[in-house]
Amino acid sequence: MNPLEKLKHELKTVLNLRGASALLQWDQETYMPDGSGAIRSEQIALLDTLSHEHLVGPAVKAPLAELVNLDNGEVTAGLSEDENRLVNEIWRDYHRAAALPKEFVEEYSQITSMAQQVWAQARKENDFAKFAPHLEKIIELKFREIDYLGVKTTPYDTLLDFFEPGMTSADVTRLFDAVKERLVPLVRRIADSGVNTGVELLRKDYDVDRQWEFGVQVLNDMGYDLNLGRQDKSAHPFTTSFHPTDVRITTRLNPNNLLSALSSTIHECGHALYEQGMDKDWFGTPFCDAISYGIHESQSRLWENLVGLSRPFWEHYYPKLQKFFPENLGNVELDAFYRAINTVEPSLIRVDADEATYNLHIMLRFEVEKQVINDKLPVKELPELWNNKMEEYLGIRPDSDANGVMQDVHWSFGGFGYFPTYALGNLYNVPMMNQAREELKGLDDQIARGKFADLREWLRTKVHLVGRRRTAAELIEDITGEKLTAEPFMDYLENKYQAIYQL
Amino acid sequence: MNPLEKLKHELKTVLNLRGASALLQWDQETYMPDGSGAIRSEQIALLDTLSHEHLVGPAVKAPLAELVNLDNGEVTAGLSEDENRLVNEIWRDYHRAAALPKEFVEEYSQITSMAQQVWAQARKENDFAKFAPHLEKIIELKFREIDYLGVKTTPYDTLLDFFEPGMTSADVTRLFDAVKERLVPLVRRIADSGVNTGVELLRKDYDVDRQWEFGVQVLNDMGYDLNLGRQDKSAHPFTTSFHPTDVRITTRLNPNNLLSALSSTIHECGHALYEQGMDKDWFGTPFCDAISYGIHESQSRLWENLVGLSRPFWEHYYPKLQKFFPENLGNVELDAFYRAINTVEPSLIRVDADEATYNLHIMLRFEVEKQVINDKLPVKELPELWNNKMEEYLGIRPDSDANGVMQDVHWSFGGFGYFPTYALGNLYNVPMMNQAREELKGLDDQIARGKFADLREWLRTKVHLVGRRRTAAELIEDITGEKLTAEPFMDYLENKYQAIYQL
Repeated sequence: MNPLEKLKHELKTVLNLRGASALLQWDQETYMPDGSGAIRSEQIALLDTLSHEHLVGPAVKAPLAELVNLDNGEVTAGLSEDENRLVNEIWRDYHRAAALPKEFVEEYSQITSMAQQVWAQARKENDFAKFAPHLEKIIELKFREIDYLGVKTTPYDTLLDFFEPGMTSADVTRLFDAVKERLVPLVRRIADSGVNTGVELLRKDYDVDRQWEFGVQVLNDMGYDLNLGRQDKSAHPFTTSFHPTDVRITTRLNPNNLLSALSSTIHECGHALYEQGMDKDWFGTPFCDAISYGIHESQSRLWENLVGLSRPFWEHYYPKLQKFFPENLGNVELDAFYRAINTVEPSLIRVDADEATYNLHIMLRFEVEKQVINDKLPVKELPELWNNKMEEYLGIRPDSDANGVMQDVHWSFGGFGYFPTYALGNLYNVPMMNQAREELKGLDDQIARGKFADLREWLRTKVHLVGRRRTAAELIEDITGEKLTAEPFMDYLENKYQAIYQL
Repeated sequence: MNPLEKLKHELKTVLNLRGASALLQWDQETYMPDGSGAIRSEQIALLDTLSHEHLVGPAVKAPLAELVNLDNGEVTAGLSEDENRLVNEIWRDYHRAAALPKEFVEEYSQITSMAQQVWAQARKENDFAKFAPHLEKIIELKFREIDYLGVKTTPYDTLLDFFEPGMTSADVTRLFDAVKERLVPLVRRIADSGVNTGVELLRKDYDVDRQWEFGVQVLNDMGYDLNLGRQDKSAHPFTTSFHPTDVRITTRLNPNNLLSALSSTIHECGHALYEQGMDKDWFGTPFCDAISYGIHESQSRLWENLVGLSRPFWEHYYPKLQKFFPENLGNVELDAFYRAINTVEPSLIRVDADEATYNLHIMLRFEVEKQVINDKLPVKELPELWNNKMEEYLGIRPDSDANGVMQDVHWSFGGFGYFPTYALGNLYNVPMMNQAREELKGLDDQIARGKFADLREWLRTKVHLVGRRRTAAELIEDITGEKLTAEPFMDYLENKYQAIYQL
């Protein structure tokens, strides 16, 4: 084997260890007995340590050293442009991992695995004090991680770079400011419009088994391959992949919220199509890997919002949904239903937020996280800061920490820097969808007939199969011919809600 | 850490890797999508190779070498009797594993993982030719394994020793001959008795959800801790443990066989109580490990047969079962039901066989396996040999290979030497149960009230917590004061069936 083949072979081992760890985590969230958490944390920590050791050990280092300067990532071998990119990306992963000592990785995995279980319990009991010492430990770990990796402009940028490579806090701030400038007045105009969208329609009794059945029909139509994946229930919906041939999603069912399961099913399916759509011949390498968390979110949110909350989508599905729930929807017109599912309303919980106010939830978290990481805000001050920011951004104050600072799992696994990618996904996907609409003639008509194959294959070619051959910024420019700005997204939101709220 | 503590620590890592592999296998049998088999085989092979490498690598070898002579297992350190035993058993595992090259372990794992999938398909299609080349490969691997491990008396004994340490083919033959001498006439007398036990009662329509619900009630009563375990459905029932705090069972539900799910649930629960009952402070070491496969089967079969097919058991449960299935059982007396579930009848499928003829299925397999391993019988001759032996032992000839030589999964994972332990479990558990009945006054009355705590705790103390401090032969002598013979088992069978069949 030449060094590149050897690298591919060894990286497959790394990914198979990560896949095994991911299955243990999937099981933890779906089927694991309640009392088995302690040993599970140990097992996951062991696998995470082994995959880290393999990535930074001699089996990867030796062939990599034949191809690049290990200190700066400069390619020294005579390779094609594509191979150059591949080796560069491999080096980036290697270099980042090699900066972290084995003991740190093991400690990190064990502490975060336990913290997730504590967080779930503390949230249930609305007991921030129970979670706080774990969060403090995690933040200490993040400071150590930043020390190992080196500060990029600001400490927070070091963490952000893991989730959104190449993007800085300054970039995010610039984009978020541009959103805020138009979004805050839009939300105010909506609130002032006095229009009642009839959202209570969605909060009647909806049999969960029928919700599930309807969701599975949509999954099939979207082209999620259930022979290479499956859907289960979990407290928090997620997508996980062990290989492009085993990509699983979860959803949650709420008998008094028709949109919750359906949105999460379509959202996770968007993620899953990305994972199933990757080039499995490159499994283990950056060419069979997501560009960034933001690009991953662009896929889930494109399907969830731009497709799943669109009028054409419901032209096809609403008559079917009415048959599932004739008692609640039989006498409700499509237009009324479409208005109800597109209600804009400030609310406490991010994952239940509408397409517009959602981004304010993210901006709040971005601000809070920067204070924690850059300014070392004490953990005990978090609830108060959170509640104040909620009032500032959304005009409402949480009734509890469970519905405030403790609502999200992310910090319990150390995911500082993750949140901004959710809003970036919204910014990425609108220009993508605009371009798809130009290139695929009659796209909205197809959607209105429940036909998604063209869109899915377009995304597969333009995004899924690209892997990390391109950065997020390059990808957007490749697809649209233009650099990323907030304008397409805000144009989309304003157009949509001007119509719905008659602004 | 002293060498013994170091050993315990490193062995825990080995067991956690095996636990992760076991979860991947559990998932493969329960929830894995159909199309994900290839990558799963790779992942399992990787974990199996890593756990093997860790067991035979320097982390275990170095502290072990401080305590024993690695060549012959002689303890060189000054240890207590208990520690001596522990180190001896650790050495036995180490020595056996160290004889196998890493490449062999990897190849073995990959080939058997794929072969299990092929077997399932081939059995479904009744296509022995499809499975044959895989079986040939596996048998070649077994020959290589025997070469690595060294022949014990006969090649087959080398394999048997893994499943039933310390027991030889000669021991098994002696025991099986003693069983056969009394069992064959017993089965004949039963057939000649002309008694109709009304077995067709069990083959009516029994709603599978209710079967499940009834089974769960029995699981709870038996003391299976569902906070540290769970039951799922799979094609073939099994028990798997990742740690005493995560022990899972599966069952299968047949709408036209009332006994199938219930028997398998009780059987697997017996295994699970053994695993949950072990001393988790010794997790990773032989003191938190089953003595042998035969002793494991003694636990499952004690509950399945000696308890679950007994009259006292049904005195408690039959009125409950009648409430679950009033249309089928409402007018059937307990005695009639008891006779029906204790029908003795030669049949093709081992796992559906009754308590008496079951042992003939095992003897047949023991004979066939010895011919394959000791006499190198060609794979293509297996179906004919199987069918001839079925006629000889049970007086019936399989209608297909699916219901003949291909019915069991064991050979597809290389489990030659496994089958005899099933019948040994029967021989072990009768003297155990006799002793329990002497020591626990009123045991049958307790069972007749659905109270199993005394029996379970007695087994926990006498068997589960012992771990590998004792061999199977020592354990039986400890418990009963006598060496193992076939007599208690045959006395039990004859007494039971003389009453039922009025012989």
